Amino acid sequence: MRNIKLTIEYDGTSYGGWQKQKNNRTIQQCIEEAIKLLTGEEVELIGSSRTDAGVHAKGMVANFITNSKIPSDKFREAINTKLPDDIGIIKSEEVDKNFHSRYDSKGKTYCYTLVNRYEKVCLGRSYVYQVRDELNYNLMKDAAKYFLGKHDFKAFKTNGSSVKTSVRTISGLELELKGDVLKIFISADGFLYNMVRIIVGTLIEVGKGKIKPEDIESIIRNGDRSKAGPCVPPNGLVLEKVFY
Amino acid sequence: MRNIKLTIEYDGTSYGGWQKQKNNRTIQQCIEEAIKLLTGEEVELIGSSRTDAGVHAKGMVANFITNSKIPSDKFREAINTKLPDDIGIIKSEEVDKNFHSRYDSKGKTYCYTLVNRYEKVCLGRSYVYQVRDELNYNLMKDAAKYFLGKHDFKAFKTNGSSVKTSVRTISGLELELKGDVLKIFISADGFLYNMVRIIVGTLIEVGKGKIKPEDIESIIRNGDRSKAGPCVPPNGLVLEKVFY
Repeated sequence: MRNIKLTIEYDGTSYGGWQKQKNNRTIQQCIEEAIKLLTGEEVELIGSSRTDAGVHAKGMVANFITNSKIPSDKFREAINTKLPDDIGIIKSEEVDKNFHSRYDSKGKTYCYTLVNRYEKVCLGRSYVYQVRDELNYNLMKDAAKYFLGKHDFKAFKTNGSSVKTSVRTISGLELELKGDVLKIFISADGFLYNMVRIIVGTLIEVGKGKIKPEDIESIIRNGDRSKAGPCVPPNGLVLEKVFY
Repeated sequence: MRNIKLTIEYDGTSYGGWQKQKNNRTIQQCIEEAIKLLTGEEVELIGSSRTDAGVHAKGMVANFITNSKIPSDKFREAINTKLPDDIGIIKSEEVDKNFHSRYDSKGKTYCYTLVNRYEKVCLGRSYVYQVRDELNYNLMKDAAKYFLGKHDFKAFKTNGSSVKTSVRTISGLELELKGDVLKIFISADGFLYNMVRIIVGTLIEVGKGKIKPEDIESIIRNGDRSKAGPCVPPNGLVLEKVFY
């Protein structure tokens, strides 16, 4: 029995997210089916993150237990032959039998991409979220600092998932502007449900002048979801990397 | 009678290119239909460039003659209400009645995007061309210099279009590398049929070590299409800007 760790890229546009569901085609399902076609085994593919419908990944990590004799590094190309164009294995490797891609994760980096302009956006609409109102990037950068560190982020989650604690540590929140494209990179030891998208929605409110940068502190402290910004659409979001 | 100049962005993925055709939906056709819905007029939309199927644009320019009373700058939003999501008017303005978007063009800039890595590419596949072989970017940059200036580029065109001369002046050819993404920007006073895609195909051959940078000079001089590289796929290509 071997434990195989996969690093996965996918375009989430056509899928109901990562996790298997009854009425929707998902990434997990597609890869499990590919592994079954290859090895005959019904594996459970453990994902490090349950990305939502429409969210993409460049560096999703998942693992599964197999009795197959396929060499560890050959799983990559072998599984890829059974996958659609929009899901790809980037790396396959054998790991310790106790490795668990979700429990062992030390953190993740997500990137959210905005296009900030008034004119209609036609190119790459599956990968960006357009904000037509003018954004003040300096205010957004000021606001970003207040998110850094260990806080209870219950104001920045959507209810629905049962987690023991909503305390998380954000280790990085960077804004990278090029032309009218703004990329927001967020790294943390873990993320609550919709946390990245609500933080981005809140930063946008700051950029529009509707929330002051220094108000972020009290929004975090008071833990009132209604004081934070909206949850922005999934298509701008990419899971960049999972750390171990 | 007014002459309206449009600046247009489009995602060419689902279209048979710019120019009207019998059996294919095209960008020109969609915009002409939108103008007809709006004004009742059957206009001829004159495009500055006839982009191929799958090629995109951020700054296509086109113009049409109208008797409509819609204010010039209002055409933008008005036409957009009649267009699909993947075609958008970025700007509309009235110009001199003699302005002709193709004949008056002084030059254009195109950008071609490559992803250079071995691993399967799943994100943004409609906008990039993947090269799995390792490319030597320094060789490609050396080769780029030989294209600059006024030359007869007949080795870098696909036969089929009747042009009086294949002499063109390339004013810029720049490579911009970020991670595994290579963007190639090419500016010229005009381009022959498939010229950008054949130049990019030739630069890739240089990057693979199959053509030497200094050989570009003789390939241009001898004008033999078979000595240049292949024509790369359309989806990596974006018409960035048209100059007047």
